[in-house]
Amino acid sequence: MENPYVIGIDIGGTNSVFGVVDARGTILHKGSIKTGTHEDVNEYIALLAAALKEIINKAGGPGNIKGIGVGAPNGNYFNGCIEFAPNLPWKGKVPLAQLISDAVYGIPVTLTNDANAAAIGEMTYGAARGLKDFIEITLGTGVGSGIVIGGNLVYGHDGFAGELGHVIIRRDGRVCGCGRNGCLEAYASATGVARTAREILVNRTEPSLLRELEPEKITSKDVYDAAVKGDKIALEIFEFTGNILGEALADFVAFSSPEAIILFGGLMKAGDLILNPVRRSMEENMLKVFQGKTKILVSQLKESDAAVLGASALGWEAKES
Amino acid sequence: MENPYVIGIDIGGTNSVFGVVDARGTILHKGSIKTGTHEDVNEYIALLAAALKEIINKAGGPGNIKGIGVGAPNGNYFNGCIEFAPNLPWKGKVPLAQLISDAVYGIPVTLTNDANAAAIGEMTYGAARGLKDFIEITLGTGVGSGIVIGGNLVYGHDGFAGELGHVIIRRDGRVCGCGRNGCLEAYASATGVARTAREILVNRTEPSLLRELEPEKITSKDVYDAAVKGDKIALEIFEFTGNILGEALADFVAFSSPEAIILFGGLMKAGDLILNPVRRSMEENMLKVFQGKTKILVSQLKESDAAVLGASALGWEAKES
Repeated sequence: MENPYVIGIDIGGTNSVFGVVDARGTILHKGSIKTGTHEDVNEYIALLAAALKEIINKAGGPGNIKGIGVGAPNGNYFNGCIEFAPNLPWKGKVPLAQLISDAVYGIPVTLTNDANAAAIGEMTYGAARGLKDFIEITLGTGVGSGIVIGGNLVYGHDGFAGELGHVIIRRDGRVCGCGRNGCLEAYASATGVARTAREILVNRTEPSLLRELEPEKITSKDVYDAAVKGDKIALEIFEFTGNILGEALADFVAFSSPEAIILFGGLMKAGDLILNPVRRSMEENMLKVFQGKTKILVSQLKESDAAVLGASALGWEAKES
Repeated sequence: MENPYVIGIDIGGTNSVFGVVDARGTILHKGSIKTGTHEDVNEYIALLAAALKEIINKAGGPGNIKGIGVGAPNGNYFNGCIEFAPNLPWKGKVPLAQLISDAVYGIPVTLTNDANAAAIGEMTYGAARGLKDFIEITLGTGVGSGIVIGGNLVYGHDGFAGELGHVIIRRDGRVCGCGRNGCLEAYASATGVARTAREILVNRTEPSLLRELEPEKITSKDVYDAAVKGDKIALEIFEFTGNILGEALADFVAFSSPEAIILFGGLMKAGDLILNPVRRSMEENMLKVFQGKTKILVSQLKESDAAVLGASALGWEAKES
């Protein structure tokens, strides 16, 4: 069998993580380099290429690699560029796919944003195997999404479709990192959960384990830890978050009527604490014709590997060389 | 040339209108029958078939007809059924496509809802010719939508995708006909405009031409007539409506990043009175990455013919017989 492997690269603001992946979604060889310290993109590419060549050799050489997939913030599938990504050190429009391909044996490189990569990974190796119509929602520091319709990822006319974290769920609500108000991301992300905690603690007087912490340092993990101990305020924070997320999901269903919505990311560690209110709220807020039809599933991608797996799945799209 | 024509049927609550259409979108022969008076669907089908056969004969016989397209409320593309349409006289799930085909020479029949039919009509004969990614919004008594991604209409896993009139734009807002609160349809439809007029007239004291009318009888046409005479309250009603619609469109862009949004229906007679606030509000509310990229266009389908044309466009999808 030729080209039995692909490579996935997940470019984050701090680290770039990569691995050689087989058709079953097993990561055979891994590596990582720093992202943020390389302001000169050519310096970054040189280091990345050296590290990639090392794992490619371990995998038997470039003849064994079908393609390279890259997940990166603001990555544009159509032109292979990263465009004005606020958390990356490079300014303007960087033709990353081309640069990587040129530096790594001319292997074809495909690039998209991290949430789209997660959706493709889910379809290839995870909870969306066999699904043609689903939405992947990534609930981490921010809220991202990858929308699949008829088995194809939706890129839109410009390559940037699927920014569901920035749908307005509370008109004139919380300020979002994007500069607007009331985005879903300002509520349903890990940072949104922490904001909800601080708001409730300030506005209310009931006792809570969370009061033992410095307000500015509360994380969604702290809220989870308090909730599993039965802390009422902490439970209420997940109720509130799940409720808003469910409202948003009901609206998303009115758009593409997916068979499933798959939730991915750090917030999913809260399990039923968040899933129960999400499911209830989505059904309560749904237009009648859609009620009871759309499943809420949890990602089956192991979180530590998911970003690399998701990106690698794009590698299978590469044309036979 | 074989099969040079298609037939479009638009089934409304009151009338069913139909016509023979050529490849350029010219309606050659027309007809109509009453919908609402036939509670027995077989009686309705018998009358419809007789009327269709008449125009088919005028068009040279069934050998000239490639297919029949039907646009109907709650029409499901996947199974050809109308399912629980509140404004139609038939209860439950009616296999309309099959019934029509059986009664009319076995010509293949394709069915979808009216807004989807409008989107396909726009793509075939109207403002969306050549566009692969667009959203058609129909602004009439209600608000409907047809979403096209990559050249394909989005039906979703169940055939009912694209209910953008029922996205919640004002949490806990106006009661909608669907039984929920704050749907776009409750604001941006012709009836929504009339509701806005009544609300403003009650809550405010400024003079207005609209005060000469019985509040319960005010229509969107009355508001338009007052606005073109410079009536400030009437102008404000279009501002308010356009503003809300623009907010909604900005959210829709975050979903599928379409090249254009095409507005269709009675409300579009107001022209720039509604278009200017829609365009301004959409841009103001848009996530930065999408700003300045999505065009707002007005439908190029003549309104009196649009429903038949839209439905007929589905007829071209029929497989060669």
